[in-house]
Amino acid sequence: MRLTREKSLMLIVDLQAALLPVIENGDQAVTEAAWLGGLAESLDVPVWVTEQYPQGLGGSEPWLLEALPGHRLWQKVHFGAHEEPAFAAALAESGKRQVVLCGTEAHICVMQTGLGLLEAGYEVFWLVEATASRRAAEARLARERMVQAGAVAVSADMVAYEWLHRCDDERFKQAHRRFLKGRSPRPLRF
Amino acid sequence: MRLTREKSLMLIVDLQAALLPVIENGDQAVTEAAWLGGLAESLDVPVWVTEQYPQGLGGSEPWLLEALPGHRLWQKVHFGAHEEPAFAAALAESGKRQVVLCGTEAHICVMQTGLGLLEAGYEVFWLVEATASRRAAEARLARERMVQAGAVAVSADMVAYEWLHRCDDERFKQAHRRFLKGRSPRPLRF
Amino acid sequence: MRLTREKSLMLIVDLQAALLPVIENGDQAVTEAAWLGGLAESLDVPVWVTEQYPQGLGGSEPWLLEALPGHRLWQKVHFGAHEEPAFAAALAESGKRQVVLCGTEAHICVMQTGLGLLEAGYEVFWLVEATASRRAAEARLARERMVQAGAVAVSADMVAYEWLHRCDDERFKQAHRRFLKGRSPRPLRF
Amino acid sequence: MRLTREKSLMLIVDLQAALLPVIENGDQAVTEAAWLGGLAESLDVPVWVTEQYPQGLGGSEPWLLEALPGHRLWQKVHFGAHEEPAFAAALAESGKRQVVLCGTEAHICVMQTGLGLLEAGYEVFWLVEATASRRAAEARLARERMVQAGAVAVSADMVAYEWLHRCDDERFKQAHRRFLKGRSPRPLRF
Repeated sequence: MRLTREKSLMLIVDLQAALLPVIENGDQAVTEAAWLGGLAESLDVPVWVTEQYPQGLGGSEPWLLEALPGHRLWQKVHFGAHEEPAFAAALAESGKRQVVLCGTEAHICVMQTGLGLLEAGYEVFWLVEATASRRAAEARLARERMVQAGAVAVSADMVAYEWLHRCDDERFKQAHRRFLKGRSPRPLRF
Repeated sequence: MRLTREKSLMLIVDLQAALLPVIENGDQAVTEAAWLGGLAESLDVPVWVTEQYPQGLGGSEPWLLEALPGHRLWQKVHFGAHEEPAFAAALAESGKRQVVLCGTEAHICVMQTGLGLLEAGYEVFWLVEATASRRAAEARLARERMVQAGAVAVSADMVAYEWLHRCDDERFKQAHRRFLKGRSPRPLRF
Repeated sequence: MRLTREKSLMLIVDLQAALLPVIENGDQAVTEAAWLGGLAESLDVPVWVTEQYPQGLGGSEPWLLEALPGHRLWQKVHFGAHEEPAFAAALAESGKRQVVLCGTEAHICVMQTGLGLLEAGYEVFWLVEATASRRAAEARLARERMVQAGAVAVSADMVAYEWLHRCDDERFKQAHRRFLKGRSPRPLRF
Repeated sequence: MRLTREKSLMLIVDLQAALLPVIENGDQAVTEAAWLGGLAESLDVPVWVTEQYPQGLGGSEPWLLEALPGHRLWQKVHFGAHEEPAFAAALAESGKRQVVLCGTEAHICVMQTGLGLLEAGYEVFWLVEATASRRAAEARLARERMVQAGAVAVSADMVAYEWLHRCDDERFKQAHRRFLKGRSPRPLRF
């Protein structure tokens, strides 16, 4: 199971500003989601963002939304986004079959969304660096469960180079200039 | 494989007071079993408790039983609860297909019970925080074996939000008030 | 896949005295193999021991052989014991289908033996505490490969209680007196 | 899935001198690739080496190429070597079905090569000690993904003894003299 640009959609779950301070590695989750989301938009990969009950919990981290001007925003009351009929219908209409998934909390909304997507036949790629919970051990458990259910755990760099596929075209050169070259070797925490 | 309230039964294996002092993370096992068991009872998910040879080893931790007034108690001589014909018959009659499993010792009675349940066709969810052995490394080995055999390793929080499914109904609001809100972010040990 | 006394055979690979000093956790491997081998013999589970090229490398740890008076000894030149026709024929004749496997080096002779057994249709149980290599990381890698190939990683305690199955018969009482009760809670290293 | 000399080919991906200084455990990767590559050549197992866009990134570590005089060199622009038609055709013509794979970066070129090989029906053996990335955690993630996809994670020692198969022939004696005996017990880092 390899990712291609054409089949991919990136889904960022519930990176809501009011929740992030209590999330272990929450800062990394937003930074990496923004980085890969930016690359996605530059490659015409759709970026969708969900918010859990924003009337009560508040909206997404503002600078994340600003960094991803092409994003499509969804509100939900089910923990799993795919339980919302409008979301499920729109995803089916998009024609995309591969979902790069991240957000918070890993073991609640991200996991329930991912399990729903797998059951509906999508290929799910669990973006490890950008998926977090209040307790990192619980994010890890969610990841293990998702992999057992058939998802593939990936890093942002891994996804980037699969989308780019080769290094000798204009697309790669632009991505290298804007995203890959400027990337500092941050330590991975997961 | 996702949990639903309607299909679930929670099974707490052999949390007997006289054994707990030598169990690594035994205090956490009882605390988490009581917490999720309480939520289970409030959602009409049956909670069953087993005791291994209580005439010799003594009974369950008393405050656990008090915290779960709706529990059904089983005594056994086989390490695996499902080897006891009366238990197996009652479980089949309950109509439940998903068993959230925890207790001690992870690698003896919990594991043998879980393998028996899997062989009998049940879906088994291994509640990591509430499953322990004298040696934590052995509890981890039991968990790996169960996952290999088809069980799903879960945390108490994970189960809670799968049972609740959505955040906009009265059920969630009650559970939030009684269980979720009051929960301190204890570190996970496993 | 659960172990039963009736179907089991225990196979101890190449615990040769001259090799043990350079093996990480080699002392634990011999101790645990002797402990479980002793229980096996008391339950009429056959215990077989192999030696790799003893004319060059020397024989098994002497006290291990003394502790297991009922053992059957095999010499081999292939790293995998099941490549030796006489061994393979005798194992088939034994009628046993479950092999509890341990010894050194985990990633050479134990692993090649285990892979051969799996390919021949046996159920293989990898006894983690009694399986070691010069480098512990390499023993762990061997274990992961075996599990991927279909083996089950087990601890000595786990095997003991599966063989015993229940706690209310004379067999358990004897085993408890001779083996389980006297067992100190050694830390597990693997 | 066991390795045999006759079916094997060793593939070393992009160990290019200019990239190695920023790779975590990069020195170990080259050392172990050279060691196992040397044994491979002595056993008539073909050793192939790839370079990613050498006109821009520079060539392979010189002493690696010198240590493997029989190597066949491939240049590529796709991150996955098997995307290059000439490479794919030559590999098919070689008749080899088992590829021992290593190099850098684990999560980009090695992984994409490995996934391509698996999809094309080859058996892939991921040589853990000789496969590295700028961040070791990302190399580990790549390895987990490859194992999930069906590859087998191996160590150099493991491969060596599978290729040799038995200890009583001239082949083993030569390999022992030239490779196995002289090998210091380096700690494994992965």
